[in-house]
Parts: sequence; structure tokens; C-alpha cells
Amino acid sequence: MKIIRDIEALKAVRGQLSGSVGFVPTMGALHHGHLSLIQKARAENDHLIVSIFVNPTQFLPGEDLDRYPRREEADRKICELAGVDILFMPEISSIYRADEVKLKAPAYLGYILEGNRRPGHFDGVVQVVMKLFGLTRPTRAYFGKKDAQQLRILQKMAEDFFLPLEIVPVDTVREEDGLALSSRNVYLRPEEREKALSISRSLKRASRLVMAGELESEAIKRQMHEMMKDIDVEYVAIVDRDFKPLEKVEIKNTIILVAAKVGQTRLIDNLWI
Amino acid sequence: MKIIRDIEALKAVRGQLSGSVGFVPTMGALHHGHLSLIQKARAENDHLIVSIFVNPTQFLPGEDLDRYPRREEADRKICELAGVDILFMPEISSIYRADEVKLKAPAYLGYILEGNRRPGHFDGVVQVVMKLFGLTRPTRAYFGKKDAQQLRILQKMAEDFFLPLEIVPVDTVREEDGLALSSRNVYLRPEEREKALSISRSLKRASRLVMAGELESEAIKRQMHEMMKDIDVEYVAIVDRDFKPLEKVEIKNTIILVAAKVGQTRLIDNLWI
Repeated sequence: MKIIRDIEALKAVRGQLSGSVGFVPTMGALHHGHLSLIQKARAENDHLIVSIFVNPTQFLPGEDLDRYPRREEADRKICELAGVDILFMPEISSIYRADEVKLKAPAYLGYILEGNRRPGHFDGVVQVVMKLFGLTRPTRAYFGKKDAQQLRILQKMAEDFFLPLEIVPVDTVREEDGLALSSRNVYLRPEEREKALSISRSLKRASRLVMAGELESEAIKRQMHEMMKDIDVEYVAIVDRDFKPLEKVEIKNTIILVAAKVGQTRLIDNLWI
Repeated sequence: MKIIRDIEALKAVRGQLSGSVGFVPTMGALHHGHLSLIQKARAENDHLIVSIFVNPTQFLPGEDLDRYPRREEADRKICELAGVDILFMPEISSIYRADEVKLKAPAYLGYILEGNRRPGHFDGVVQVVMKLFGLTRPTRAYFGKKDAQQLRILQKMAEDFFLPLEIVPVDTVREEDGLALSSRNVYLRPEEREKALSISRSLKRASRLVMAGELESEAIKRQMHEMMKDIDVEYVAIVDRDFKPLEKVEIKNTIILVAAKVGQTRLIDNLWI
């Protein structure tokens, strides 16, 4: 595995690759969720590039940029074992410049739900991902369905700019008890972790309700809120694949999204129906 | 020469090309200025794509979008004779979608001079050029130095997003009497055209002043304004290659820019020192 920190070195190495290139952009602190992205990318491409870059522009003032978990040693080992060809770990100063041309997330899709709670967050995401696409020129880029809104916005970016690549969605990986994997789970104290389970449980309940024929969004949301009454729910949303609110669940075109704070830790999860 | 209007058809044809691809994006109404871009691109690349697309998002409300000259028949002939391989003429509806991820020109570079007079103009330029780059995936893309600020912003876009292509600047082409070629010159009535010559003449004067050792920007500008007193000068600017104002001309790092209205027609021109 090549570890590359320098932009010019990456360009040179990328220029040598022929065949398909899989790309998994991460912010490090890799867990089994990332690993499933990496494994899928490994299986589907001739070459595999993983990036680790804690992107400052997608954190809002007051968010956890400084305390975001960093575990470079462990991350390297995970990538090595997973068969990554190139681990790209650039410096902030080599990625960002003065007076940049800036990408902005879509006016609707980028500013509802997560974008409403974290205004500007998705602007930072599209900015860095477009840069990383320019550097790595992937055939396929892999993103988790746990960040459903991010995934849709990046698909939109690829469509709007006719990018010659495929955005590949990858299923959320969960702990045995249902908690969706997240680098931020390390912030949770044991009693908080227990409470956090109500998020995935409420989604499981929603799934069962739909299977039993309950399609009314309000009725489903009411039961989900009831199950999460011990945590600080920011939103429960039932939307279509373009994130338009749905009064009734549409089979194969619905995402149910939850954001909640458990103690100081903000968690998101969702269910695709 | 293939004439392609359909996005999917272009992608398919582009996918078949190997070797270098030159790209000249235009808004049609081709003149000898465009032709010099096309000829340079033809000489330097295995394949040559020219696009004709009057991009609505770079026109401000009240500008000349509707009366912008359209001469498809003549444009086709010019491209055919110049050895263009693919002439791409997409419909507006196939290029733009609802709720797009949007590019914004740099906060400084995009909003001074032309950007100050035409706020949002360069946002529309970067948006469409990034789309066209996605579709055509050029090795080299050619832009005229007459639109000096546009050229610098597009170079910045390529740098900021690490685009795997080269932006190639091409010298301004002039009429015998010095008038810089522009699709908008057709708007000029004979007496206006005569007055418009004071723009290129003032730049020639500036050039002679610098050669004679006059480097003070204010002194140069004063003489230029004096020569253009019969037209409605919007600005005369003496800037470095990053468009920072210069008190003194720096050899090999200076652009002198003029924008002026002659009758109803807005013209720009510049001189690279």
C-alpha cells in the first residue's frame, strides 16, 4: 500500500493507473461501516484509493472539528489489511486555496433537515468531494446510505456536472443491537449508548408498521417519537428519494430519517423502504 | 464532422475517443477570434470538440440574451472547414436541471470589474463550463485572452478542483484597424464602430507609454481616459495576473483592462504586459 500525502505525488501515481479505480473518501477513525465501503470498492475495481481527510469546511463553528476522533495508526492498518492500493492523506493547506471557486449544495436539498440544522455543512461536503474527485478521478466512488442526504446531494452533483463516474450507495452497518456505526459513537457514555438504541429501534418499529400496512406518515412518526421520548429528537422525516415530504409511505421510494442528540452527541440514522 | 445535440449521444461518442481531446466552448456567432481558438486546438490535439451553447445563466436580467446573435448555418460551415470532429449543440433543458448544485465564482476575483458590473455573470460561466468539461472531458480547453477575467477564473476553477485538463489562453484577434473581435461588434453602427476604436487605441497608447518607461498606473490611466472621452468608459484597470490593482506596471505581470459602452453596446478589451 502506497501512503501519499502530497498532491503532485498522487497525480503522478493516478496518472499511471489504467483500468477501473474505486474511491472511498473518509474522515478517518475507520470502523466496520467504512470497511464495508472499502471491501465493496475492492471487489468492484482494479485499483482502490482511500482518502483520509478531516475536512474543516464541512464543520460549522462550534462543532466537533477539534475533537473529531483521529486514529491514523489504526486507520493505516485497516486499509493495509483491506487491500487498499493508495491511502491518500493530504494536508489541509494543499487542498484549500485563497479566493476559491465554490460549490454550493442545492438550495432545497442542501438546506432542509441536516442542512437546516447544519447550514453550510453540505457546501463544505460538495467542495471537498469535487476536489477529491479531481485528484483521484474515480470510476466509482462509494458512500454510505447512513448519510442519506449527503449521498443524494453527491449523486445530484455528479448528475448536474455530468461527472464521468458512478456514485455507489452502500448499506449501513450496525452493531449487534442495532446501533448504526458512526465515528461519533465513541463519544457516547454507556448509559447514553443504551438510550441511543431507541433511534434504530424506532426505525425498526416503522418498518414493522409499514409491513403491517400502516402507510400514514403522521401515524408512523407519532409512534417513533413515542419510542424516542428519552432522547432529544431533532427531527423525524418521511421523504421520497428526492427528499420531498411524503404524507404516505411509497414502497421503494421512501426514506425515514432521524436526527437526535444523546447527551452532547448528535446522531443520525435512517431506513430505506 | 458529427453534429450532436443529445447529451447521451455525446457521452457515447466521447467514450470512444482515445488520445488527446481539444475543446473550444463557444456561444456561436463564430468570428476569426473563435477560429483562432479552433485552429490552435486542432493543431494541438488528436480530437477536437466545439460546443455552441448560448448559456442563459451568464446573462443578467435586461442583458442581450434574446438578441444575442445566432447564426447556426454559418457556424456549422466554419467548424466543418476548420476540421472540427464534433460540434456539440445541446438544448438548454438538457444542460440545466431543477435544484442544482451550484458553482460560484471566487468572492474577490468573481465580483470585481466585470463581476462588479455584471454581478452573477461569472457564476453562470463557471456553472456551464464545469458541466461542459464533465461532458467533453477535454485534455485541453481553449479560451480567449480578450475575456481576461473569465480566463483567470476558469484557470482558478481548474486549479481549485484539480481538474485533469489544461486551460490554454489564446491571443485576441483584431480587425486591421485594431478593434478586438467580438460577437457583439455586429451591434455597432458605423459611427459607433469608429468611436469604439478609441478603446484599442488607448491600449496601444498605454503600451507605448510603458515602453517609454512610464510605469505609474495613474498616469497611464489618465491618458487612456483622455483618448476615450467620446465613449462611456465603465472602467480602466491596471492589475496583476491575479487581478490585484497595481500602482506601478510590473513587466510580465500586468493586464490593462477597459470596459466601455459605445451607444447601447458594451465592449471590453485588454492588454497583457
